[in-house]
Amino acid sequence: MPRYKLTIEYDGTGFVGWQRQENGPSVQQAIEEAVKNFCGMETNIPAAGRTDSGVHARGMVAHVDIDRAFEPGKVRDAINFHLGAQPISILSAEAVSEEFHARFSCVRRSYEYRITNRRMPLALDVNRTWRIWPALNAEAMDDAAQVLVGRHDFTTFRSSKCQSESPVKSLEQISVMRAGEDVYIRCAARSFLHNQVRSFAGTLVEVGKGKWTKRDLKKALEAADRAACGPVAPPEGLYFLRADYEDVNR
Amino acid sequence: MPRYKLTIEYDGTGFVGWQRQENGPSVQQAIEEAVKNFCGMETNIPAAGRTDSGVHARGMVAHVDIDRAFEPGKVRDAINFHLGAQPISILSAEAVSEEFHARFSCVRRSYEYRITNRRMPLALDVNRTWRIWPALNAEAMDDAAQVLVGRHDFTTFRSSKCQSESPVKSLEQISVMRAGEDVYIRCAARSFLHNQVRSFAGTLVEVGKGKWTKRDLKKALEAADRAACGPVAPPEGLYFLRADYEDVNR
Repeated sequence: MPRYKLTIEYDGTGFVGWQRQENGPSVQQAIEEAVKNFCGMETNIPAAGRTDSGVHARGMVAHVDIDRAFEPGKVRDAINFHLGAQPISILSAEAVSEEFHARFSCVRRSYEYRITNRRMPLALDVNRTWRIWPALNAEAMDDAAQVLVGRHDFTTFRSSKCQSESPVKSLEQISVMRAGEDVYIRCAARSFLHNQVRSFAGTLVEVGKGKWTKRDLKKALEAADRAACGPVAPPEGLYFLRADYEDVNR
Repeated sequence: MPRYKLTIEYDGTGFVGWQRQENGPSVQQAIEEAVKNFCGMETNIPAAGRTDSGVHARGMVAHVDIDRAFEPGKVRDAINFHLGAQPISILSAEAVSEEFHARFSCVRRSYEYRITNRRMPLALDVNRTWRIWPALNAEAMDDAAQVLVGRHDFTTFRSSKCQSESPVKSLEQISVMRAGEDVYIRCAARSFLHNQVRSFAGTLVEVGKGKWTKRDLKKALEAADRAACGPVAPPEGLYFLRADYEDVNR
């Protein structure tokens, strides 16, 4: 059956998250219903990441099997048409082989956490960023964040609800960069634990405020104890940026 | 009476515009009510520009007279507090002399018009940009736009509802720049006619699509005839960026 790789942008604000749940509308359900309205098929659409309620995506990747071969642009446009005014947009659809799996073939996930570092409330970017004050030292955050890179037991930065078999993961890279009043934390890894990026962000903010040192962050990591984590940053600043695959990003 | 210059960010989506009107909530009314709740005074708050419904501001300037001398940061925070969850944020308050007038002392207004040039619907930037397709030639737009610079009768680019005494204005500068899938039109002048920037934007898009040439734009300007204008771009892409004043921007 023809398989299509979908790259998806969404505003997570009004959703319970990517994954179908009993307690409200999910992004997955919205797309599955659009596919059903387009071609009459019941589908189950796996994705590279399962974002929480309020978390956004600029380039989530999912795949869908459709029993007819369509021109991929037609698949993209038809799903978008049936999504209507919901804040979900299929940015691209590409024909892929049946070996491609959005979740299991993914070799790298990239996230961005956006902080708006100002005293004044948000008007234009409500639900799009975490506003915090006082002023953060982004350079200190970037320097401290480097202790997180590499293969570690990330229990400290893992939600108690995390379903991953192991807390040991390899963080490939992390950077903290200021652009005007915004501070961006970007990180990439083969896979992440539940709430790992938000736990990094909340803890790095303690470094940015001068409350924690790089050494404190290292000790928290080494403690491998959830209680050693700083505050968990709220969902609205988090964006799933992209998923990479072998074979020229396929 | 102490006068304060306010710099204001707002999301124009839910408002009838800056100015008080009978038919719905305005930004001006929201701020005047916040001032009343803060210090019990009825005020009338003039602004550098009167944006239409749906038009945003990153740096609108207004002024308010308050019968007590407060530390300016206190004025900013108190108005923000009383604005509550409304998408309006006072970015700064500064003590100014009674000669300062947000509208009449203003020597330069700057606007930005944001276009998102893609086929796929918007998810994260709904009501923040004008999405259009096909691909626009931003360089051709920038080149053509230069015919608008200088002192001209801008009747072509003026709403029939415009209340300005004269259609003759001096456009100081205009630029069109692509950044990824976004195309930004920025312009600055001492003052603008009603719908002038949206009329520029809609007409320049015709150039970007290859339907109009630079020569067509020049002829439309010289016609000094509203009927010669291209389509008027929608409000959601327009941002009032800043207002400048003599005496070190005061």
